[in-house]
Amino acid sequence: MNQPNRESKSSAPHSSFLPNSRRIYVAGEIHPSVAVPMREISLSATKGFDGKMEENPPVRVYDASGPWGDPEFSGSVETGLPALRQKWIEAREDTEEYPAREVKPLDDGYLSSEHAKLKSGESLLQCPVARVRPRRASAGHPVTQLWYARQGIVTPEMEFIALRENFQRSEIRDMAGDAGRDKVEKQHAGSAQLPDSPFTPSVFRRFPQRIPSEITPEFVRAEVAAGRAIIPANINHPEVEPMVIGRNFLVKINANIGNSAVASSIEEEVEKMRWATKWGADTVMDLSTGKNIHLTREWILRNSPVPIGTVPIYQALEKVGGRAEELSWEIFRDTLIEQAEQGVDYFTVHAGVLLRYIPLTARRMTGIVSRGGSVMAKWCLAHHRENFLYEHWDEICEICAAYDICFSIGDGLRPGSLADANDEPQFAELRTQGELTRRAWDFGVQVMNEGPGHVPLHMIEENMVNQLEWCGEAPFYTLGPLTTDIAPGYDHITSGIGAAMIGWYGCAMLCYVTPKEHLGLPDRQDVKDGVIAYKIAAHAADLAKGHPGAQYRDNALSKARFEFRWEDQFNLGLDPETARAFHDETLPSEGAKAAHFCSMCGPHFCSMKITEDVRRFAEEQGVEEGAAIAAGLAKKSAEFVEAGAELYKKS
Amino acid sequence: MNQPNRESKSSAPHSSFLPNSRRIYVAGEIHPSVAVPMREISLSATKGFDGKMEENPPVRVYDASGPWGDPEFSGSVETGLPALRQKWIEAREDTEEYPAREVKPLDDGYLSSEHAKLKSGESLLQCPVARVRPRRASAGHPVTQLWYARQGIVTPEMEFIALRENFQRSEIRDMAGDAGRDKVEKQHAGSAQLPDSPFTPSVFRRFPQRIPSEITPEFVRAEVAAGRAIIPANINHPEVEPMVIGRNFLVKINANIGNSAVASSIEEEVEKMRWATKWGADTVMDLSTGKNIHLTREWILRNSPVPIGTVPIYQALEKVGGRAEELSWEIFRDTLIEQAEQGVDYFTVHAGVLLRYIPLTARRMTGIVSRGGSVMAKWCLAHHRENFLYEHWDEICEICAAYDICFSIGDGLRPGSLADANDEPQFAELRTQGELTRRAWDFGVQVMNEGPGHVPLHMIEENMVNQLEWCGEAPFYTLGPLTTDIAPGYDHITSGIGAAMIGWYGCAMLCYVTPKEHLGLPDRQDVKDGVIAYKIAAHAADLAKGHPGAQYRDNALSKARFEFRWEDQFNLGLDPETARAFHDETLPSEGAKAAHFCSMCGPHFCSMKITEDVRRFAEEQGVEEGAAIAAGLAKKSAEFVEAGAELYKKS
Repeated sequence: MNQPNRESKSSAPHSSFLPNSRRIYVAGEIHPSVAVPMREISLSATKGFDGKMEENPPVRVYDASGPWGDPEFSGSVETGLPALRQKWIEAREDTEEYPAREVKPLDDGYLSSEHAKLKSGESLLQCPVARVRPRRASAGHPVTQLWYARQGIVTPEMEFIALRENFQRSEIRDMAGDAGRDKVEKQHAGSAQLPDSPFTPSVFRRFPQRIPSEITPEFVRAEVAAGRAIIPANINHPEVEPMVIGRNFLVKINANIGNSAVASSIEEEVEKMRWATKWGADTVMDLSTGKNIHLTREWILRNSPVPIGTVPIYQALEKVGGRAEELSWEIFRDTLIEQAEQGVDYFTVHAGVLLRYIPLTARRMTGIVSRGGSVMAKWCLAHHRENFLYEHWDEICEICAAYDICFSIGDGLRPGSLADANDEPQFAELRTQGELTRRAWDFGVQVMNEGPGHVPLHMIEENMVNQLEWCGEAPFYTLGPLTTDIAPGYDHITSGIGAAMIGWYGCAMLCYVTPKEHLGLPDRQDVKDGVIAYKIAAHAADLAKGHPGAQYRDNALSKARFEFRWEDQFNLGLDPETARAFHDETLPSEGAKAAHFCSMCGPHFCSMKITEDVRRFAEEQGVEEGAAIAAGLAKKSAEFVEAGAELYKKS
Repeated sequence: MNQPNRESKSSAPHSSFLPNSRRIYVAGEIHPSVAVPMREISLSATKGFDGKMEENPPVRVYDASGPWGDPEFSGSVETGLPALRQKWIEAREDTEEYPAREVKPLDDGYLSSEHAKLKSGESLLQCPVARVRPRRASAGHPVTQLWYARQGIVTPEMEFIALRENFQRSEIRDMAGDAGRDKVEKQHAGSAQLPDSPFTPSVFRRFPQRIPSEITPEFVRAEVAAGRAIIPANINHPEVEPMVIGRNFLVKINANIGNSAVASSIEEEVEKMRWATKWGADTVMDLSTGKNIHLTREWILRNSPVPIGTVPIYQALEKVGGRAEELSWEIFRDTLIEQAEQGVDYFTVHAGVLLRYIPLTARRMTGIVSRGGSVMAKWCLAHHRENFLYEHWDEICEICAAYDICFSIGDGLRPGSLADANDEPQFAELRTQGELTRRAWDFGVQVMNEGPGHVPLHMIEENMVNQLEWCGEAPFYTLGPLTTDIAPGYDHITSGIGAAMIGWYGCAMLCYVTPKEHLGLPDRQDVKDGVIAYKIAAHAADLAKGHPGAQYRDNALSKARFEFRWEDQFNLGLDPETARAFHDETLPSEGAKAAHFCSMCGPHFCSMKITEDVRRFAEEQGVEEGAAIAAGLAKKSAEFVEAGAELYKKS
């Protein structure tokens, strides 16, 4: 029985909220109805050696958790999230409501309503806020963000994104005061700013990253218009908080959820979505198979603040009893409409798996490992005909244009092992992904491209370069890649390494891999472990690219660490709960969290304490403030004796 | 009370042994007494579609666990490990035994024997196999592997290493048969083989990696003679199984253990060493502070099959009650002799923290975070004198030359945050590390250099280039580096990313970071998590460099995965226990491990199963074996219909 239990349907439990944090909303200027959520982490003051307290400004961070992360939100899973984009969509006056396609028992994997009842023992919990009057384009043009961008229109979605990507750095800077401003602003130039450095990967020279110091709504528009960025936001998913995927923006991550024939339930999947976004998932793919696919997706969409992606062929396959050869364009098309009306924001479509590429996989170590790729390969062989997704691409584009569904063009022939990385079938398909990208753009549809998979470190950059070249700089969206195959149980790490690197090179979104990859279905802990590993990878990439302000949170945390502000160190981290628990394992008392030493080295032997002692020692030698350390002194040892005692003066 | 308990002192418990593995020994040719341990993982046969069984040759892997990993070893912690190098050392006839320096209560942190008893409540468990007649050089020349290498001598240690680094690839290849050989040999060219590729980092052009297809004893000798590799093996640690650290060999990892004033015991530390080497630590640093430092180290050394490193200044500081300013050359020198006689294989010495560099750290975000660096900075400031380690460098070199102790020249001014990465004090010290390296080479002492720390992705390569240039291509040994500061609790991942990259660029050894870094003392699980993350990083680096045969284990595991040989997939992984446990969480029955589907997708919807179905389908269409897929077919779709059904035929 898949009925969500009562507890989880009521408003988000307190554990949804991270410590010392409050939710703020930043209002739009062009579109005053825009209200961008951010999480503000408050910090304690720094205690100087002179006893003077120095305030530390709060840190504002990007927040993907939606209303579920707002303590003042009183909604429930049953009522769904507010439709924040509804008025923006209506105001454009280019869509119409119409009666939804009738939901059939087969949509949920049952031959009839009777079967559904028989199977589950009782009737399934229908979603009370299911979308019954969906919208579609009505004005004879696409209703995509790409189309608006090309018309020069800055939509509310675009302004929302601009504010979101800046996370109020300039406001924080103003709050920080003279000394603090330096810490807020201090950041290394990134590869985007250093194209000529010998240490900058070649991809930056061939395809420069152009990241402005402040993201403006117009910049968002221009990037979307150029096809370099997408905003996944189906007009039937008005609950979504707009976000952008593109290499001149913050690197995003996706978490996969989805039931399977073997385990899981609706309740679990909705909760997994909330759980994944709490820790920072920017989009969620619902990869459900088996029974109740339609219903699970409805519950997820009505409650998701982040874009939801699917692989429609999975559901289509269920409708033909798992027999790939019985798939048809008609069944697939009907499934697309079904999901479009529910509000799916992006579709993975394996239209690049062409008949002629399939034999190229025969000599591989691990054949075809993409589920969608395997299904289409099987269909192609069974019929000795070209992939029907490729043949009906124009019609698929028309559907996506009418609902603003983005393509995530699948990589059905991605390598399933290091041995198969960067091989002929993989790159043959990537070229076709490029062709499909350009065709989709002609229909006004937004596009990103999926990529591998399993690739050794030194072969990752080639993937990025080829994708940018062949797919016209459309955003790249990769699974990892895993950089070795020898660590089942740790593939969040093997792939986190590859993800950080390809994010640096320009990959726009990283699809997470959990520790259970290749072994089993991820549970709650696995989802969290996967999301955290990928937040690390994405952030490491942002720092390396030189995304403006990326280092601001690192600086705040490092300063807290150096000053033994333990609580601030925990709260600024990606996972405050785990950081605190680890600390408490060694030094459980509350006093220890205020202690000026760290548990690693004990009270008498902590290097950070010794550095503080060095400062205090210098001060006790009777040195006055004033005369800043002369620049010349920094270079000459001879002068040290005279000036050394000014070391570590608080500036 | 620090008495090891009875259980852990008896022979290694069964859990020391990894599944489906046996210990083999490979004999030397030049030196027949050389017997190199390897772990051989046996695999099950592949079941073809025609029912024919095809054997899979076993996989032999590098094994750092020493006799503790040999089920036939019957020794105990109390008796210590066999002195396998004793006869090699004696045969050289250039060392003499002499009465050891008397162990003083202060060596263990006590003012007198009475204090030691009073503190612990009873007398401490002395190590029954403590080294009382140590050896030192007696023939008027250094007794270092560097000195022998320069004389053109291929020592047994060098032959041991050559065999170890090859892990019998050629033998396995011969066992594999025609079809299997391809899977064993299949490997992508690495960056070392592709210096001119635009995707090869610039460091490979400035400092090429020269990795031969087969490591010979002479190659080991030549690399050691050139200073590009070291063999840490104190003549008083004859129990050590020789290993090499150098960028033209497999990337190595180090695990830190060590008690502290706050927690831990001798028993725990010895067991941590065995535990770390079980999972693959190539060296172990004993960073003990507080009481019983000498005794803990004795227990560890007598039981360690891997080189042991220390930071002698930690113990010296204990001897002066933690007051850095009371340190002196005499106390430090006495500590060096104490540790040299016990058999420590490498010393971290912070001789590069010069007086004139200390003021350069005043403007840093996180000052000086290295413990050794902080201590020396404090001493320098207190005395307004140059670092006594720098001033007595020649004498330190003489001691190291007399026992064959390698230097790990410390990086006391390494950055403690991203903000401080690659700054002036860090690189100033690195230049001095280079000067100290050359001076040590003049004394015949082997040297590696320590490096950071906290560095964003795009600034890592510069560290490697500067180290190679300034330190004459001596091996680099880095801590991580961490690539972001925002994930306390996950620094094995933030740093695993940086470690993989710097290993690729040429770093020879990676010092692990555990999840508890910055938060608390690592426990057993943290040590394992740190070691596994770093084995992943090191192996990813070996693959990217193009170390010959590195891909062989990946291939074997990928083939097992594709063929649903679940047990083989688990057993070929770095952590069979976790892989199996994760699988069993979803599909606990034994039958599921023989099942031809994976738990991720369920029995009807697994991509690997579908690929097999594609193969079977093609076969059922009545296509014969024979006529291999024509090369031309691979390029032309038009020909597919005729030939497609030959897909996936077993070759």
